[in-house]
This record gives sequence, structure tokens and C-alpha cells, in this order.
Amino acid sequence: MIRTGFRVAARFGQHRALLRAPSLQPRLSPAPACGSSTDSLVSRFCPEKTDLKDYALPNASWCPDMLSLYQEFLEKTRSDGWIKLPSFKSNRDHIQGLKLPSGLAVTSDKGDWRIFTRCIQVEGQGYEYVIFFHPSEKKSVCLFQPGPYLEGAPGFAHGGSLAAMMDETFSKTAYLAGEGLFTLSLNIRFKNLIPVGSLAVLNVDVEKIEDQKLYMSCTTQSRDQQTVYAKCSGVFLQLKLEEESPQ
Amino acid sequence: MIRTGFRVAARFGQHRALLRAPSLQPRLSPAPACGSSTDSLVSRFCPEKTDLKDYALPNASWCPDMLSLYQEFLEKTRSDGWIKLPSFKSNRDHIQGLKLPSGLAVTSDKGDWRIFTRCIQVEGQGYEYVIFFHPSEKKSVCLFQPGPYLEGAPGFAHGGSLAAMMDETFSKTAYLAGEGLFTLSLNIRFKNLIPVGSLAVLNVDVEKIEDQKLYMSCTTQSRDQQTVYAKCSGVFLQLKLEEESPQ
Repeated sequence: MIRTGFRVAARFGQHRALLRAPSLQPRLSPAPACGSSTDSLVSRFCPEKTDLKDYALPNASWCPDMLSLYQEFLEKTRSDGWIKLPSFKSNRDHIQGLKLPSGLAVTSDKGDWRIFTRCIQVEGQGYEYVIFFHPSEKKSVCLFQPGPYLEGAPGFAHGGSLAAMMDETFSKTAYLAGEGLFTLSLNIRFKNLIPVGSLAVLNVDVEKIEDQKLYMSCTTQSRDQQTVYAKCSGVFLQLKLEEESPQ
Repeated sequence: MIRTGFRVAARFGQHRALLRAPSLQPRLSPAPACGSSTDSLVSRFCPEKTDLKDYALPNASWCPDMLSLYQEFLEKTRSDGWIKLPSFKSNRDHIQGLKLPSGLAVTSDKGDWRIFTRCIQVEGQGYEYVIFFHPSEKKSVCLFQPGPYLEGAPGFAHGGSLAAMMDETFSKTAYLAGEGLFTLSLNIRFKNLIPVGSLAVLNVDVEKIEDQKLYMSCTTQSRDQQTVYAKCSGVFLQLKLEEESPQ
């Protein structure tokens, strides 16, 4: 086993020069226990008022299965502890007021940045998805409808598009459940192809949090659970975002 | 271990009704040894004359590193047995005259389909990549430059975008090296983040072909090999495409 400290340094290899500066090094080490509570992470992540467009809302391209399951989960947000996560154009919008540790700030905020899973803006052509998160049970459900720009074999979603969707659902879950910030590993077994335009349901669970790592599992299947599309496990590294200094 | 025959059936679970028809079942079984030679697969895959747009050609967005390594490999296509693979808008274009086995033909050819890794058409914003393949050594190199629509953490490529790029490079390699058609598994360890706009080099090798499965490995690193971005292993299932019957 490679120790966590080394892995952090390794991931930040391209910033080695910065990491070597003694004054920065402590700030880049993951906190022994990341301190923010899930409640405070969630309330920051889900602002009650914002001008940002939320891409995780129904549109005309959603298939009936996707729409009705969305309504079911929306009902559960009122009674059952589930939270619908907003989905903005870029992770920069999600972490407003926070920033990556100093060694990792390599680019300006200017330019047209998009989170990969929102890279295609034409409704229905690319990624359609919405993630619901359950804070106390540390689990998520993602409703995913791949469009025709996500094709692999003719008529079916590319394996890589599902891999990215699972990684992204892991990512949001890991962040809110325990400040998990970076994917360390993904282990995917594909079982069936997802037809383009149909609904796939991702069920994500946080299995354990240990040594600054979050261990998660995901099963992707049809709504009736009769067809498993893929199973995946993922490990994320905890790392605390820093408060941005006021301009 | 689950036997291959079962895995094939499982992957085609949504076509169970079709699979149950005895007349179709034998056609869906993978051939004990897929018969086409790499040479004939390659010559079909790389048509000398075509009207289709090849997206794997240099454009103004390519960084100097990507351009110069492209030129280096282009040189090797003249002397060293490497082949530059064309990259069309959809896999439908790549397998012209062939089709998936009957049970898997679920959609019409009408509509705007794109292979996932060519889903963003604005130069430089999404996936820029080109794959070189070496038939006799059964290995590939992919030059990959992620654009700002592939973002995960601010300024860096989403882990899922790299997962998809590795899957796609595996996919083309598996097909040409031995009619590998479907991803069975991906096992990815991420080591460092790829800065948006920079070059990452994927080195793919076919490790072995056994029991209708291709076992491959991929190392993704910086051009100078000083920074490893990710390591990945992948298993693909062999399955022979069928000749399309003339209309």
C-alpha cells in the first residue's frame, strides 16, 4: 500500500516546485479529519437563491421514465430527507468563495469553462441527469439519460460516457459526504449496454471513510432493476478547500 | 469466474426476447476464434478515399507539444509501421458495410449521432486527439489535449473525460488488434491531474488475447514521461460484426 501522504504529493506532481516550498506544504496535506459537517457542506452547495442556471431540471427531452422518477424523488425531498442537488455550468460555480489549495491554482477564471458532464448544451443531445443526495445516509441516486452525442456502439451509450457519469456522481457524493475531492481510482465492470435516450439509474453508497479516503460503490441499472448496466467502485481523496481571500 | 458465454448473454440482457429465438442465438455467440486478420481490419478501417471528415487532423487549437509529437508519429507512419487512424463523427461511419449482430440493432440510422469523444465540435473546446496504431506490435499511442469543456476541478480535465479517452483508445485498439468490440471492465488509478489545454500521451498495449477476451493496459503521462496522469487496465470482448445485406 502506498501511504496517503505520498499519493497526495504524487497527484500534485506537476506542482512539485510549489510543493517544495516549506510554507505551502502544510496547507496541501489533507487534514487528519476533514472538519466541515455534511450539513454545512450541503447548505453551501445548495444556495436558496442564485442567478446561476440549474441544468438538473426537467426539459422536453426527458423520457417519461426519467420525468416520473424525478417527480418521485422530488416528493421524497419533502418527506424523506433527500436533497435535489443543483447542477451549474462549472465546478467554479459550485465552490464559490472557496478555492483549491494554493499549489493547484493554475488557471485564470476567464474563459468559457464547463464541467465535463454539462459540455453539451443542446437539450437531450448529450448528458441529461439529476442527482439526489441523502445526507444522513450518505448515499445518492443519479437519473441519467444519455443522448445521441454520447454514442459508442451504434444506438448505445459509450462506455466512457457512463464511466464519467459514475465518476461525477461519486464526486458530488464524496464532496458532500466528507470533502472527498479527487478520484484516486475507479473499478468498473460493464454488464449491458444502455440504449441512447433511455433512463439509467445510478445508486451510489459511501461504504467507509478511512485514512482521508472515501470508499464508494455504484450500481447502474434500469428503473425496474431487471437490467444491470454496470457496477463500479471508487476511492476519493479528502482535501479541504480553502476560503478565498476577499478581493 | 463467470464464463464468457454467460457474459455475452448478460450484456445483451435487454434483447433477451430476441436471444431466446433459437435461430438467432448461434449468431450472437462470439466465434471461438475471431477470423479477420489485423491487416484486413485495418485496411477496411482506414479507407484511402472517403468524403467523411477526419477529426484527427491538426487544427489551430493544438498546443505546440501536440503538433510536434503528431509530426513525429506521422514520420513513423512512413518508416516504422505505424498507422494514423482516421476519426469520423460516428462509429456508424467506421463500420460501414458491417453491422452489430442482429439482437443489437435497436435504432434507426436517422438522426444526428456522434461518437462520444467527438461530441463537441468547436475546435479546442472539447476533445482533441489522434490515435496511432502499430498493427504488428498491437499497440497504440493517443495524443490527447483536453479543452475547457472537459473540466472537473477548476483548470483540470475531469477524471471521467480521461476515463472515456482511455476507453476509446482501448476500443479502437481492441477492434483492430482482434475484433474486440465491447468493454467488459476498466480499472483506473489516477495519479495526477491533467491541466486543461496541455498534452497527455496515452500508451496502450494489448497484453494478451484469451477466451475471446482482449486484455489491455494504458499509461497516460506527460510527453517527457516525468508525470504519470493515470494507469488503466481494460478487458474487451471479441465479437464479429456481420456483413450488411445489400439494400
